[in-house]
Amino acid sequence: MDYRSAFKASVARVRAEGRYRVFANLRRVRGQFPRARWRTDEGDVRDVVVWCSNDYLGMGQSPCVTGAMKQAIDDVGAGAGGTRNISGTTNYHVELEHSLADLHGKEAALLFTSGYISNQATLATLGKILPGLIMFSDALNHASMIEGVRQSGCEKHVWRHNDIAHLEELLRAAPVDAPKLIALESVYSMDGDIGPLEAVCDLADKYNALTYLDEVHAVGLYGLRGGGIAERDGLMDRFDIIEGTLGKAYGLMGGYIAADSVIVDAVRSWAPGFIFTTSLAPAIAAGARASVEFLKSAHHLREAHQERAATLKARLKEAGLPVMDSVTHIVPVHVGDPVLCKRMTDALLDDHGIYVQPINYPTVPRGTERMRFTPTPMHDDAMIDALVEALRAVYVQHAGMKVA
Amino acid sequence: MDYRSAFKASVARVRAEGRYRVFANLRRVRGQFPRARWRTDEGDVRDVVVWCSNDYLGMGQSPCVTGAMKQAIDDVGAGAGGTRNISGTTNYHVELEHSLADLHGKEAALLFTSGYISNQATLATLGKILPGLIMFSDALNHASMIEGVRQSGCEKHVWRHNDIAHLEELLRAAPVDAPKLIALESVYSMDGDIGPLEAVCDLADKYNALTYLDEVHAVGLYGLRGGGIAERDGLMDRFDIIEGTLGKAYGLMGGYIAADSVIVDAVRSWAPGFIFTTSLAPAIAAGARASVEFLKSAHHLREAHQERAATLKARLKEAGLPVMDSVTHIVPVHVGDPVLCKRMTDALLDDHGIYVQPINYPTVPRGTERMRFTPTPMHDDAMIDALVEALRAVYVQHAGMKVA
Repeated sequence: MDYRSAFKASVARVRAEGRYRVFANLRRVRGQFPRARWRTDEGDVRDVVVWCSNDYLGMGQSPCVTGAMKQAIDDVGAGAGGTRNISGTTNYHVELEHSLADLHGKEAALLFTSGYISNQATLATLGKILPGLIMFSDALNHASMIEGVRQSGCEKHVWRHNDIAHLEELLRAAPVDAPKLIALESVYSMDGDIGPLEAVCDLADKYNALTYLDEVHAVGLYGLRGGGIAERDGLMDRFDIIEGTLGKAYGLMGGYIAADSVIVDAVRSWAPGFIFTTSLAPAIAAGARASVEFLKSAHHLREAHQERAATLKARLKEAGLPVMDSVTHIVPVHVGDPVLCKRMTDALLDDHGIYVQPINYPTVPRGTERMRFTPTPMHDDAMIDALVEALRAVYVQHAGMKVA
Repeated sequence: MDYRSAFKASVARVRAEGRYRVFANLRRVRGQFPRARWRTDEGDVRDVVVWCSNDYLGMGQSPCVTGAMKQAIDDVGAGAGGTRNISGTTNYHVELEHSLADLHGKEAALLFTSGYISNQATLATLGKILPGLIMFSDALNHASMIEGVRQSGCEKHVWRHNDIAHLEELLRAAPVDAPKLIALESVYSMDGDIGPLEAVCDLADKYNALTYLDEVHAVGLYGLRGGGIAERDGLMDRFDIIEGTLGKAYGLMGGYIAADSVIVDAVRSWAPGFIFTTSLAPAIAAGARASVEFLKSAHHLREAHQERAATLKARLKEAGLPVMDSVTHIVPVHVGDPVLCKRMTDALLDDHGIYVQPINYPTVPRGTERMRFTPTPMHDDAMIDALVEALRAVYVQHAGMKVA
């Protein structure tokens, strides 16, 4: 067995498909976001405009967040020093959990070190807590939910994306008395569409199923206090478990669930991915709490965010660019080929100072490769103008688009 | 199906076994570690000495670490804003990976958001990269390694803890040509013993197996530059993959692997737990790099650490307390019952201002419940005196120990 060759071959497969990932080395400059400095492989540093950040509202540079982080570092130091159970729980964690429970109108919340692990650990653990649980998972659920469902060891049924009739068909076919869980996202981050939340809740009532909602691309951004799509649509109390992240609109890192105390207590007591890991650094928890609380009353930022997204979508359409349908702040533009997608984003970066990553398999299905733009309230009209012009040029040069 | 009752029952099971976890709400005070403030459930605040932190050298309060964090926050803000691939790679991440690769004498390193996910994601992914891989895992490997091995879907063989003859028996029984991986830890964190690293490497050579070493409780602490037990024993180049953490001796959070470039590149390209998650906050990466670099040349701290551990072990033995065998800085004291363990640690906290968590199942096997003390260079003689006295009193009162 020649291991080295095997590893090389596995990377060669990725390269051959045109989806080898080269991480752009970026340096954000606090106060100048979405402008940033890009360090080329040759070591040159160039100014770019970031168009693919998940720091949707620029909270990562908000003085209320950075100030809370620095204060926490001054007060208690760097890391938590242990797992939540073994010396790693601080008031920052406790208060942040209260803040998140309040955000979602739930009794309790539980922090994880990432949104990924919060999905994975919670779903996998639910399968252990509820013997015989059958999981119903939307076909486009995030990788972390897929992993969690898989690790739960539960019988699982994947319903066609947003197809509520298919979901009901699957629910109807399952034994009436079996425990059931329906898992979906509110905002699907690569297409920018929204799950059929209310219809799912109705089916959950009808078939006595638990409901699990991933709001990672919605928390901070939708609802009057940033509680997500479920808040916006008045459905928070109908979801048993709401999962969110601190790494996108809140500008930091980490994930969480919010639910009834008894559910949180059960997950807290049984999930290896929660139990056996060093807790979030106090400064992260402090910054996140400041961000969550700030955004509870900063609805103007959410409105500005939506306006920017709507403007960008309208401008791209006017320019004849293949902007994909999206009812949210996410603005995907179709390419359909991984090699072309990479070539076009390279051209945007090299020739136009515009940074956006190619979105290729496995993040999206093959054949749907795209560029995914995430305008923030800090992207001004001039930046949108420049983006539309650059995209036209790149589509003309690389994708054979006709000049209008 | 009554879900609420099912969740309640799952928590009741934990309670019935005496291992329901109550997280102590601690507030470290920068510069005063291991002293901290404990907030009781009633809201009172009391001074305690922390005896169970994994911030083994107190780096979490080191000005070089906290200063680097604050500088990074001032320069670039709070979070990374994306996954490593999508706008979330900064120079802080790149430089930290260089620093860690150098620490272990490897070509490359790869950051994860936790040590847990670094083990889980890497091991699970190796199974996908190397079809037919057979894994050989030490019986006491950490929960995160067990999860990773399980999720790899590989054929697996668990060798009796540290039993090299058993490992060889299992290797010999496997097909000669099958790819193989041996996974173990250097320092086992609950017993404080050390794996048979050299003998494992010899067997790996003999049977052409890959070697995977978890050094999370050794990095920063052993070896002339803090490279771990493998550095101390001159074996770094014989382990294909070394896994470590930034959350213990380095005083922050996050995990990593270090290996040949081709291995790192393969894991980087295929591991969902790496790909689909927001990258570490720049301030965490900046602080970690400062900590890793500082400890490369702070051997005096490692010596002081070992001296404190040796002194504590000797004092506990002199006092007739059931200190368990340990050849490292970890000092476990046997209890053997979860309810008693909790009662004794409650008494230490309530009556003596000493904070140590009961270590119960599933962290250790049932019947081996214990208290686990982790002296740091900051635990002075008076603190050790106070601990020994308090432990004697608690063992006499609660465990029927005879007064000498």
